[in-house]
Amino acid sequence: MTIGIVGLGLIGGSLARRLVRRGVPVIAWNHRDHPYAQAEADGIRCVASLAELAVARPRVIVLCNPLKAMPSILDALQPVLDPAVTTLTDVGSVKGMVRDQVEAAGLGECYVGAHPMAGNELSGWQAADPALYDDALWAVTVRDDTSYERFLDVARLIVDGAGNRIIVLDDDTHDRAAALISHMPHVVATALINQLVDDPNRNIAAALAAGSWRDMTRVALTDPNRTRAMVDEDAANVERLLREMAERLTAVADALRDGDGETMTRFFAAGQPFRNYKMAQRTDDVRYEERDVAFDPAHWQADLLASARRGEHVIGFAGEHAVRVQVRSAV
Amino acid sequence: MTIGIVGLGLIGGSLARRLVRRGVPVIAWNHRDHPYAQAEADGIRCVASLAELAVARPRVIVLCNPLKAMPSILDALQPVLDPAVTTLTDVGSVKGMVRDQVEAAGLGECYVGAHPMAGNELSGWQAADPALYDDALWAVTVRDDTSYERFLDVARLIVDGAGNRIIVLDDDTHDRAAALISHMPHVVATALINQLVDDPNRNIAAALAAGSWRDMTRVALTDPNRTRAMVDEDAANVERLLREMAERLTAVADALRDGDGETMTRFFAAGQPFRNYKMAQRTDDVRYEERDVAFDPAHWQADLLASARRGEHVIGFAGEHAVRVQVRSAV
Repeated sequence: MTIGIVGLGLIGGSLARRLVRRGVPVIAWNHRDHPYAQAEADGIRCVASLAELAVARPRVIVLCNPLKAMPSILDALQPVLDPAVTTLTDVGSVKGMVRDQVEAAGLGECYVGAHPMAGNELSGWQAADPALYDDALWAVTVRDDTSYERFLDVARLIVDGAGNRIIVLDDDTHDRAAALISHMPHVVATALINQLVDDPNRNIAAALAAGSWRDMTRVALTDPNRTRAMVDEDAANVERLLREMAERLTAVADALRDGDGETMTRFFAAGQPFRNYKMAQRTDDVRYEERDVAFDPAHWQADLLASARRGEHVIGFAGEHAVRVQVRSAV
Repeated sequence: MTIGIVGLGLIGGSLARRLVRRGVPVIAWNHRDHPYAQAEADGIRCVASLAELAVARPRVIVLCNPLKAMPSILDALQPVLDPAVTTLTDVGSVKGMVRDQVEAAGLGECYVGAHPMAGNELSGWQAADPALYDDALWAVTVRDDTSYERFLDVARLIVDGAGNRIIVLDDDTHDRAAALISHMPHVVATALINQLVDDPNRNIAAALAAGSWRDMTRVALTDPNRTRAMVDEDAANVERLLREMAERLTAVADALRDGDGETMTRFFAAGQPFRNYKMAQRTDDVRYEERDVAFDPAHWQADLLASARRGEHVIGFAGEHAVRVQVRSAV
């Protein structure tokens, strides 16, 4: 099956190079043609327009463009894409907003969301590297009315094409989890550096800072406009989590004021399952158990979400109504 | 001048080895004598009791024992230490509490506090390494009634003996700054992992976690009992900072709820001086300016605190009433 890639930046370029290296035909379009000579040399067929990409009838088109370009790209694709042959997916780090944009463009029927856990601090085609996706996990997001065939198009691209793992989620579960492990912590890191800057003894504090401060504020040093855009795109989840964090911090402050040892003991014990989970990952000779997990075709979405909740990652398919999963350590 | 070291763990052992390597005579006591053979081979004179250490009349005794052993060690030193010849200091990460303990033991008059910014994840004599103190900065804590001669004993040990830099603070300024860049962030990191553990989709969140989450929660994976002890020892400062952090997070949550773009813009801009400071540190060819800073002997404590606030680090002495400072980048 031919795969269409829109955008040959770090994420799209790395995926395109990985797919052709693994024998998957790739056709690509980029908003500027400067990577085309190198991409063609790598075996990627580059085209001059989104219309040309769509009429090549790829099985899946992967939108790897910046989120802010999404509406104009969807508008350009809508009249030329044939939903009977092409499934649309993307690699955005928020899923609810992208689905809204896809539906607004009238392409909701052929869309399945995706978000690869891959990336580094670089950007652009020059940084594209097939190894960026080594052992990568993708979140694939579906709705109750997503057809299993559409899902299979995207899942096979990831599992067979890219050789990666997937977990199957709904948009809301994805965006809540992403807010918890990324968007909200970015706000917390920013609040930490703001706290230092507001302190009259900020140079003394900065002089005493060691590894814990460096680690906890590293993400606050990245482009604040990008962080703000990420937070705005997932605003409701970030808002809720910030209030929960504020409550947790206030509870510890109250316990310190009151000398409430029991609350302090509970606070420091509560995270132990996560410490144990990280410790289990550190053992050098991790050999993940693999097994087949059957699902009911009438509610495959819920069955696969339950599998993800158990810490299972899909690595293949086992007949029509079962997936092959790796059982990773669970919290 | 001979230096006495109490406790040959990572911090004390590394300091002892560094001092003898730099030609400073060192006499040491450890609560167990298992490191003595190696320490003696390194040129460290090891003694069987604290009394033997004190009667050797070292110019400075550096308490490198665990904080919990402090009261019993001070009680053992008090009857044998001659305050006319020996100045007492320590390496603890909280300064107010240690001074209280020293005063309770009747040794306040000969005490100057110290806290080297040195350490790693290891512990014990086996991990002791003179290079642990390479380019280290020490906070030296004094009171208004600390005599300049006592301060000089400790400052010269650090600057001339260990070849390190110092900033001069009062205990409260030190403990507030340490709470800001270490103790409070440890609580925040712990609250983050607690938030994940409490989430019904915790395994999904853990699967999606990338660098930002790993960095921000790393310190929550260390021994929670040690973290709790650190927080308890600096409780009032940690309490205040947690409430301020809760207010900052709540303000962002309110701004997200209200679509208040101005507040969001201010929030993400506020930390810019710290981003600029870190950027300035990254340039490869940093050559710190050096200059002499005069102080008034009538209030040398306040003058040296003001120097620390400007981001200056003392690297030597220039006559009787001036220090040589390195001007590091300032926030």
